[in-house]
Amino acid sequence: DAVNIEKVLEEIHDDDQLSHSRLMQTAAGVREVGRQLQRRPIKRAVRNVMIVTKARDNTLITLTRELTEWLLSTPRYGRPTGVNVYVDAKLKQSKRFDMPSLLAQNQNYHSMLRFWTPELCWSSPDKFDLVITLGGDGTVLYTSWLFQRVVPPILSFSLGSLGFLTNFQFEQYKTHLDRIMGDSGMRINLRMRFTCTIYRSAASTLSSSTSTTSLMTEPANERVAVGMVEGEQHEVLNELVIDRGPSSYISSLDLYANESLLTRINADGLILSTPTGSTAYSLSAGGSLVHPDIPAILLTPICPHTLSFRPMLLNDSVMLKVKIPEKGRGSAFVSFDGKGRVELGRGDAVVVQASQYPFPTVLSQPLEWFDSISRTLRWNTRTAEQKDW
Amino acid sequence: DAVNIEKVLEEIHDDDQLSHSRLMQTAAGVREVGRQLQRRPIKRAVRNVMIVTKARDNTLITLTRELTEWLLSTPRYGRPTGVNVYVDAKLKQSKRFDMPSLLAQNQNYHSMLRFWTPELCWSSPDKFDLVITLGGDGTVLYTSWLFQRVVPPILSFSLGSLGFLTNFQFEQYKTHLDRIMGDSGMRINLRMRFTCTIYRSAASTLSSSTSTTSLMTEPANERVAVGMVEGEQHEVLNELVIDRGPSSYISSLDLYANESLLTRINADGLILSTPTGSTAYSLSAGGSLVHPDIPAILLTPICPHTLSFRPMLLNDSVMLKVKIPEKGRGSAFVSFDGKGRVELGRGDAVVVQASQYPFPTVLSQPLEWFDSISRTLRWNTRTAEQKDW
Amino acid sequence: DAVNIEKVLEEIHDDDQLSHSRLMQTAAGVREVGRQLQRRPIKRAVRNVMIVTKARDNTLITLTRELTEWLLSTPRYGRPTGVNVYVDAKLKQSKRFDMPSLLAQNQNYHSMLRFWTPELCWSSPDKFDLVITLGGDGTVLYTSWLFQRVVPPILSFSLGSLGFLTNFQFEQYKTHLDRIMGDSGMRINLRMRFTCTIYRSAASTLSSSTSTTSLMTEPANERVAVGMVEGEQHEVLNELVIDRGPSSYISSLDLYANESLLTRINADGLILSTPTGSTAYSLSAGGSLVHPDIPAILLTPICPHTLSFRPMLLNDSVMLKVKIPEKGRGSAFVSFDGKGRVELGRGDAVVVQASQYPFPTVLSQPLEWFDSISRTLRWNTRTAEQKDW
Amino acid sequence: DAVNIEKVLEEIHDDDQLSHSRLMQTAAGVREVGRQLQRRPIKRAVRNVMIVTKARDNTLITLTRELTEWLLSTPRYGRPTGVNVYVDAKLKQSKRFDMPSLLAQNQNYHSMLRFWTPELCWSSPDKFDLVITLGGDGTVLYTSWLFQRVVPPILSFSLGSLGFLTNFQFEQYKTHLDRIMGDSGMRINLRMRFTCTIYRSAASTLSSSTSTTSLMTEPANERVAVGMVEGEQHEVLNELVIDRGPSSYISSLDLYANESLLTRINADGLILSTPTGSTAYSLSAGGSLVHPDIPAILLTPICPHTLSFRPMLLNDSVMLKVKIPEKGRGSAFVSFDGKGRVELGRGDAVVVQASQYPFPTVLSQPLEWFDSISRTLRWNTRTAEQKDW
Repeated sequence: DAVNIEKVLEEIHDDDQLSHSRLMQTAAGVREVGRQLQRRPIKRAVRNVMIVTKARDNTLITLTRELTEWLLSTPRYGRPTGVNVYVDAKLKQSKRFDMPSLLAQNQNYHSMLRFWTPELCWSSPDKFDLVITLGGDGTVLYTSWLFQRVVPPILSFSLGSLGFLTNFQFEQYKTHLDRIMGDSGMRINLRMRFTCTIYRSAASTLSSSTSTTSLMTEPANERVAVGMVEGEQHEVLNELVIDRGPSSYISSLDLYANESLLTRINADGLILSTPTGSTAYSLSAGGSLVHPDIPAILLTPICPHTLSFRPMLLNDSVMLKVKIPEKGRGSAFVSFDGKGRVELGRGDAVVVQASQYPFPTVLSQPLEWFDSISRTLRWNTRTAEQKDW
Repeated sequence: DAVNIEKVLEEIHDDDQLSHSRLMQTAAGVREVGRQLQRRPIKRAVRNVMIVTKARDNTLITLTRELTEWLLSTPRYGRPTGVNVYVDAKLKQSKRFDMPSLLAQNQNYHSMLRFWTPELCWSSPDKFDLVITLGGDGTVLYTSWLFQRVVPPILSFSLGSLGFLTNFQFEQYKTHLDRIMGDSGMRINLRMRFTCTIYRSAASTLSSSTSTTSLMTEPANERVAVGMVEGEQHEVLNELVIDRGPSSYISSLDLYANESLLTRINADGLILSTPTGSTAYSLSAGGSLVHPDIPAILLTPICPHTLSFRPMLLNDSVMLKVKIPEKGRGSAFVSFDGKGRVELGRGDAVVVQASQYPFPTVLSQPLEWFDSISRTLRWNTRTAEQKDW
Repeated sequence: DAVNIEKVLEEIHDDDQLSHSRLMQTAAGVREVGRQLQRRPIKRAVRNVMIVTKARDNTLITLTRELTEWLLSTPRYGRPTGVNVYVDAKLKQSKRFDMPSLLAQNQNYHSMLRFWTPELCWSSPDKFDLVITLGGDGTVLYTSWLFQRVVPPILSFSLGSLGFLTNFQFEQYKTHLDRIMGDSGMRINLRMRFTCTIYRSAASTLSSSTSTTSLMTEPANERVAVGMVEGEQHEVLNELVIDRGPSSYISSLDLYANESLLTRINADGLILSTPTGSTAYSLSAGGSLVHPDIPAILLTPICPHTLSFRPMLLNDSVMLKVKIPEKGRGSAFVSFDGKGRVELGRGDAVVVQASQYPFPTVLSQPLEWFDSISRTLRWNTRTAEQKDW
Repeated sequence: DAVNIEKVLEEIHDDDQLSHSRLMQTAAGVREVGRQLQRRPIKRAVRNVMIVTKARDNTLITLTRELTEWLLSTPRYGRPTGVNVYVDAKLKQSKRFDMPSLLAQNQNYHSMLRFWTPELCWSSPDKFDLVITLGGDGTVLYTSWLFQRVVPPILSFSLGSLGFLTNFQFEQYKTHLDRIMGDSGMRINLRMRFTCTIYRSAASTLSSSTSTTSLMTEPANERVAVGMVEGEQHEVLNELVIDRGPSSYISSLDLYANESLLTRINADGLILSTPTGSTAYSLSAGGSLVHPDIPAILLTPICPHTLSFRPMLLNDSVMLKVKIPEKGRGSAFVSFDGKGRVELGRGDAVVVQASQYPFPTVLSQPLEWFDSISRTLRWNTRTAEQKDW
């Protein structure tokens, strides 16, 4: 069977006499494998497409109908019809989407037109070969929230100007989809997500059950430390923010890496951002712009009280914990990709780790990220392009 | 043979039907291999030790003599004597080092005490199993300059307060070296370096030959583009800086990624820094602090004229080129780890890539980097450490 | 009568043929008058001293008792006893302050020991020739809150390390007070305050009456614009902060100078700081350090969404208004020197102007501000002082 | 005689019993006088106009000719002809300016058309009632350089987009000039300049005589300190910059306020900027935007090595001195408004003070500065203006 990573790991482990030069060569090799993987297109047939959009936006429903019809009807992979399409179950009753008139077009559509629910995304993400989003960056973040575990490839169309996450113009959707579903296949950018877990101190007066944002809160059955109870868990694509909420007291936050206390942070708050989130809130707070291929955790303080506390990037193998001091003046609030404000009391903590479930987005072009930066930050940009090299 | 990366690469290449889930699994596996490698200690016998220090500093020469004597005389690996020691050839004549009295101690020392020259470092880096530096961060940068290709493991002692690169206290040198040369072995941090290459425009009036800093200037025999001639090449551990030099005109610099023009930068200059260099000049210019395990290139502008031009981190697989515009107002100056000021004229360029020759430093402890940050930036630090988790 | 500013103003007004050179000379003259005023010490007898401290802190009450006794008993201005002392009315019942034992010492103390209340500060600030604060910067801010109109000279003692506003060591209180109440007199730093006024939109659902922080809320009887009702008013010494409060939506704030809309600000919030406040919250948000003699309003955005929106300093003659857009997504919160969180609804506004009631602090030494900066920001400071010039 | 500032100063001085309330009232009054002065228009007849432009730019010479002709011919102040016009003496021979054809138009022009030289500006600045500049901000800086002492009112036309200093569109020059030279008069913004003086250590090997930039170097006849010799003097409108020049060593600079050492600065350099210069180099180095009415000196470090060394604003009554340490590693370079690079050796110093000769610019509209900021920094600007207040 193709690439046997298990075996590679075993081999490293057994090599008790690993020499310096062997270490250097292997490390270089591993890095090269990573690069090759990034460049490899996926060419498998796309037989099941899911469409995500704002179910309340009339314009978007009309476009969803148009796209659905085109996907169902355009012959692919040697068959007379197109591919299966999953749309939001809320559209079943939508007059604007008008399911009856669509099904009337072709008998096969009765089996090909399907409906997704958050539960289906949670239980069977492998049902979808491709997810298309219509809307803005918010719709992409919602899609990340829908897939708390494995995520299918995501292709994001923008209706107006392109955003940081919406890199395909909807106007050319036929061209883009024909290419991606055809021989060219799609190149994937595996964007890091964070797995964020709340831990309640046994002494905490704040119950996890108050939060209603999380679709699939993990059962609080595992104890990671004496007196700590595991609470809800969220995957984030952009960032986790911890701030003082409505309190006018400064937040004191204890930051741990792995199991060691690094420092106590006095600030308005703290942003733990992925590279994808580096163009969002972290940028406003003074963080650097970070290419999404870089495996790093951005730690960006909000209005820190120590001038030397600068934005930092930590390696993605570290497990970070932010804890409210037992003897502090109060609580803090955590939000996930801008949603789900959860209160943390004294002794409570949130643990952040690179997720084992990255968010795979379809690349529009090799320098996609630079283009999005140039465009959005209004660089004196790539207009004067001269390919002289 | 242990880990066959070639084979892995081949397998990826052959897998024409690479599916999305296979890609995700392989990527996760490759990342895990990388992490395991970082944690593996090297336990091979250290039979040849090189010592680098400032040959003009009397205190350091005395300590070098002390360390040399201890290394030569302390029995190791089942033999009655110690290990071979290479010291700077300049010390041969040093009265303070006093080679004759050292050789008089033991007949074997005549063969065990050896001398290194820059040429030897260049031609035979594999002769050294370990390089010890005595001094400050400057001595470590000098060591990086000595080894322009493969670099042996580097262990850096500090004489006073610890620095960013000098993480071992010289006072405990016996304890540290006994542990590292014994059963514990040494854990290595493979720090990224950059390979920087000057390209001269055919029209350039500035000759490469004026620079005398580089030990091993590459012959200028390869043409990468019509009208461009490859000039000298340097490895840097901290950063490459391009600035306007004594000119009071603003620098205009064209920045390319791979072969595409990204933007024209108007600024006092530009810093291309490794993660190791993120605590040096880049920090003064507003860059973030970056953990040395992160494979990234920091692009930090110096006094940019566009407020939206913020510090950025690019992935290490990108090839960056900074070019002086053909029709600009003038020249710029390039320096490598703070040395070797080279002038670039109109049309000249410098190309920067992650080096295939990283700089391996011996880790003093798992959270070494956080400690160096806390210490040097005077965080309200890890004194209140409570291991409650 | 000494300096007749009215007459000067009249003269300027009448001079219809004001020439350029006359304008230049007059402007230079006015500036010089300002400088001379800053250097003039006040030498009037200090007959009534008010002491402000935290009435709940036991240590401070003990020291207040000690200071009171010393002020009452030390003969001054040719009289056998000392000066009148006003202490917090709350101390009347304090066992630790022990008024009975104090009054027992001298019959005169019955008339010399007096008690202040917030109401007295409000109605008769001219009763006090000097106000002494014991405590930290918070106690000084509290004193500013007590005197919403004219403020007597303030001398602030620090018990531990000196702060930005507490520039006298309590340990040497006798020396300091003997000097200031003697022939040397006191030099005064007139620190700018802001007068902040809330204006409610007629459509606003938020009533002013909910706030209980303000001691002397102005009657809401004046209409400054159609549909706007004047609400409460506060004097601030450090800053006014407008933020989004517990909402996770970005704040949209419309900023007006005089009567013109300057820009719509998208940010987490906005700080309007005095020069005195430049070392407080504004500094954390990226503002500059500003000497308290400079007549300027600092406008420092908190996490602005536009990279070009940088910290600004406006001249103190401008009237600034920050208004919640009529059609925005929500409300904002205003706080005054870190207190008195007031909610602003759609269409509501807060107006900020340089106050006609500055906050006069006694100078400890000519370069007091530089010293406080050096000390608090841990500059590599003035230890190496060489007066070679 | 109108406003007798001398008398006011005397009165303050004589008032030995200056009370606190009198001090407060006088200070408020002085500030009010300052504000009234800013609002007073100058309405004296403009009988002599000087035009400054780049004498080498053909387009500008053509426009200068057009403007000259219009000024000479348009009847003003009850006379059949216009006003006297001074143009650059270099234009006498210019074919494009074509003086002969101009003089041929009217016999009076022989006396009305005059020529200025740098020497005339130096010796008789009072000859000009108004100076018009045609060009960019560079031309305005050149005009500041021409008038090292008293400066006439400056009106700056822009040919293309408006700049920070060029606030009048040339296209409407007739409208603007008719208004200003008519009953409306002109409102003046007195922009602070700095007087910068070089002091040479007696031990310095660097002679002042090498600099040829200064038009009117002061004779080096005054000794301000033992071993210090006063050298050349410059007025700057934007900023003075001290940097390390071509050296790659960090600059160590000792900063003094009045006669006290404040701190030793380790940085790439230091910018001492006026409020006018706050939108120029200081902004690139992280300084705040400062309204030109604010009497402040901006101290903005360039890439400081201490993270706590932040941009500062000092009051304009302070005398700043930057000195090269006697025992430092080397020299530094000083430039004035981007020109006149002068080297400072060990022990040499530059002294900066608010000049007694401000730079008076004609205001285009009350919120001119905000407009220039909005325009140049591309704020989400004043388009949505609603005057609802």
